[in-house]
Amino acid sequence: MNFTGSHILSIQQFDRSDIERIFTVADAMAPYALRRRVTRVLEGAILGNMFFEPSTRTRISFGSAFNLLGGEVRETTGIETSALAKGESLYDTARVLSGFSDVICMRHPQSGSVAEFAEASRVPVLNGGDGANEHPSQALLDLYTIRKEMESRGRGVDGLRIAMIGDLKYGRTVHSLCKLLCLYKGVHVTLVSPRELAMPEAIVEQLRESGHSVTVTEDLPSSIASVDIAYSTRIQEERFDTKEEADLYRGRFRLNQAIYTQYCEPNTVIMHPLPRDSRQEANELDNDLNQNPNLAIFRQADNGVVVRMALFALVLDVVDQVDLHAREVNWFNSLRRP
Amino acid sequence: MNFTGSHILSIQQFDRSDIERIFTVADAMAPYALRRRVTRVLEGAILGNMFFEPSTRTRISFGSAFNLLGGEVRETTGIETSALAKGESLYDTARVLSGFSDVICMRHPQSGSVAEFAEASRVPVLNGGDGANEHPSQALLDLYTIRKEMESRGRGVDGLRIAMIGDLKYGRTVHSLCKLLCLYKGVHVTLVSPRELAMPEAIVEQLRESGHSVTVTEDLPSSIASVDIAYSTRIQEERFDTKEEADLYRGRFRLNQAIYTQYCEPNTVIMHPLPRDSRQEANELDNDLNQNPNLAIFRQADNGVVVRMALFALVLDVVDQVDLHAREVNWFNSLRRP
Amino acid sequence: MNFTGSHILSIQQFDRSDIERIFTVADAMAPYALRRRVTRVLEGAILGNMFFEPSTRTRISFGSAFNLLGGEVRETTGIETSALAKGESLYDTARVLSGFSDVICMRHPQSGSVAEFAEASRVPVLNGGDGANEHPSQALLDLYTIRKEMESRGRGVDGLRIAMIGDLKYGRTVHSLCKLLCLYKGVHVTLVSPRELAMPEAIVEQLRESGHSVTVTEDLPSSIASVDIAYSTRIQEERFDTKEEADLYRGRFRLNQAIYTQYCEPNTVIMHPLPRDSRQEANELDNDLNQNPNLAIFRQADNGVVVRMALFALVLDVVDQVDLHAREVNWFNSLRRP
Repeated sequence: MNFTGSHILSIQQFDRSDIERIFTVADAMAPYALRRRVTRVLEGAILGNMFFEPSTRTRISFGSAFNLLGGEVRETTGIETSALAKGESLYDTARVLSGFSDVICMRHPQSGSVAEFAEASRVPVLNGGDGANEHPSQALLDLYTIRKEMESRGRGVDGLRIAMIGDLKYGRTVHSLCKLLCLYKGVHVTLVSPRELAMPEAIVEQLRESGHSVTVTEDLPSSIASVDIAYSTRIQEERFDTKEEADLYRGRFRLNQAIYTQYCEPNTVIMHPLPRDSRQEANELDNDLNQNPNLAIFRQADNGVVVRMALFALVLDVVDQVDLHAREVNWFNSLRRP
Repeated sequence: MNFTGSHILSIQQFDRSDIERIFTVADAMAPYALRRRVTRVLEGAILGNMFFEPSTRTRISFGSAFNLLGGEVRETTGIETSALAKGESLYDTARVLSGFSDVICMRHPQSGSVAEFAEASRVPVLNGGDGANEHPSQALLDLYTIRKEMESRGRGVDGLRIAMIGDLKYGRTVHSLCKLLCLYKGVHVTLVSPRELAMPEAIVEQLRESGHSVTVTEDLPSSIASVDIAYSTRIQEERFDTKEEADLYRGRFRLNQAIYTQYCEPNTVIMHPLPRDSRQEANELDNDLNQNPNLAIFRQADNGVVVRMALFALVLDVVDQVDLHAREVNWFNSLRRP
Repeated sequence: MNFTGSHILSIQQFDRSDIERIFTVADAMAPYALRRRVTRVLEGAILGNMFFEPSTRTRISFGSAFNLLGGEVRETTGIETSALAKGESLYDTARVLSGFSDVICMRHPQSGSVAEFAEASRVPVLNGGDGANEHPSQALLDLYTIRKEMESRGRGVDGLRIAMIGDLKYGRTVHSLCKLLCLYKGVHVTLVSPRELAMPEAIVEQLRESGHSVTVTEDLPSSIASVDIAYSTRIQEERFDTKEEADLYRGRFRLNQAIYTQYCEPNTVIMHPLPRDSRQEANELDNDLNQNPNLAIFRQADNGVVVRMALFALVLDVVDQVDLHAREVNWFNSLRRP
């Protein structure tokens, strides 16, 4: 695809070369994200960071990414007091707000709303999550993390062995990740969930049609025994009749250091879209994994910044300009680090 | 008036030369607003964007305008958690907040509050709307839009023919616009509203005393037949006994493409202060006008940015410095456009 | 202490030389805070201004301080919609958010929460107030104000005579101030409060052990008769059985211009942590003092900005770089002034 001026609404719009392009640019953003270099390439540019549904970390990740390219951020959180809540059409809102910025990131509780907004916008729109529908930058940062983690182990995404664990029915992130994996070759996917929360059949089909092997199971130990990535998701209590039933499942799909040591190959990467609910006595990813160097959950969040920087640089067509407007920051004892 | 260091509280403080000064500066801001040029004239300066009553678009418009001049924005939205809500006086709040910024934009639900705040402030204060009282930057962007639209038709504001349509009793924007028009010559004003929502007599008098012709009518077709501008406003359901009664009026004052084609002169400009309520089956300005090039409602919003840039540049006395601290941005494929 | 990379969590971590270091740096920030000079020393750096409990003025003061050093600010207000509210641990939140910024300022309603957050953070954390526990930048700005006010009278903090008035039991600011004063010599402290709201005995002991003289009294006139500083705090109505009882106390500890003129030495400095509740018919610090040049309450707020700039510059280790990345702003008619 031609990124310049494009909206980023769905992972469906990317082919494999698009993904590779995004990731190559994301790699080049690292020195800026770590503030070893500073660029002013987007000086004077404004991001309209429109979060009509609150999401602190996604909002701040997008905002920081834009700041790191030298741009300014104007933003809103919540829909209650907006003109949208008073009955203004997405068309009108988009026409107005796109006059105040160079690019818009938008999150909204309704499926399809961001695409409708984008159609009326005069500047590129990045989907920051539209209800149960899409959250493309999250899917991209997940895949980018897999690629980086595998790279550091001398491997690639082709041939990857991955287990997805937990609520695979409602988890937007695992759906998107599966779709992106369809762009790669020979992936071995193990789907571990209670039957009630199984991965939708259409997605399983799509994986198989892409030539991937798919194993469906309810047994955690066997499924994590020979994978590169264990991607855990939250067991959502509200999907079950009683808390007790949810706890039963939680216990069966729980990953902690003891289980990791007993069953996983060394260096198996642990991922999770976050947040983990630490109020649960037994959450799906135990805190005793926090010192495990293969726990990649915080690197996922970090990677979100460079991936979002890449998306901004691509749609605003400044990729080749980033370094030209940059300087070293050898006088600043930066404490930001991976 | 001398703009340097002044508060902008009311359109009453301007004479015609002040308005022309503001608009001349606004014209000069266009290349920056379109990001063809970037200026750092307000580098290091801070706008305190204090919205004690939420208003997403006005807040973002002010914030973007300040960013486009190179300044930073610190802001607040809502009054619930502020010291004001805990009983602090406007005097104390103003004394404190004015120590954190170089200029303050303030919106507050109470009439007169912004003027009271300004009296204690140590930096210039711009009124971003104080209840039913004043919203001077909105009035200025309306007049600026009229001037620009007429200019592109080889005309000026003197001699303008304008119809104001809808709720003329409670609409703060049409009141302010009438007052500003009193600074010009030979304007023909047609006031179209249900009798219950007629323009206040004092404003009609003021228009007549300024030598303008005023026609009061309830007939839409005749009133829009020979005007340069049709300025529509929302029929406010809550002013009527029943929704049905409101719908009756709405039907009579509704502007859509068919009515426009049948009754209006070619190139008649359509304006509206926004938002339109699109939940209504028949709102006062139909969506089928969206492709009509004479629909100026989104240009109004765009013009708000340059008008607000002009106000900032004037009160901070940097008008002559904007270009000196600027550079071309030929390397950025700006997508922001009119 | 070594400031570089340190968290600023409590005034307990400072010795006298640390305090002097902070204040020396704060003094050097004045030309930037008044925008006579602009520095870009923190260009490209990001402050995560995480206010999980709202506090408009503290939030904006920290944000403005960071902007004045050339950095950008990403922020959040309120806890309701955050992952913390959904059960995420402070550990996870800290690990994630510290990947988006170079330094974090955090306010949170729970005692100890900021320290817990800091332990997991990968960047320095400044405590912006953690419940009833600590608010170190407020304590520092109070002491800095005392130092500046005394300096302008040719005196220092050693040997200071200070009266603290009002609710000394629950007032976090007076507790912290007392602890900081223990680092100085020969201070005469007069504690004026209703018996029910007396200064905690432990703090009185600490003052005495530091060699300071402490007088405890309920008589306002005698206590303010020979002091350099009268530090007033709010009589908190909610601590008393009835409003009437609170009003009795309020009347006895109220400071106004007449009382000031009758009892105080000339040039006695009046301080207060703000806000004052102006809804009270008789608040503890009357508005008729507003024109009194010795009323330092707004200078306290102003001083907060330079003190916070100093803290940022110290923990990010850029003190010696501030001037190197600066320029004069002789072309900007700055209206910001003391």
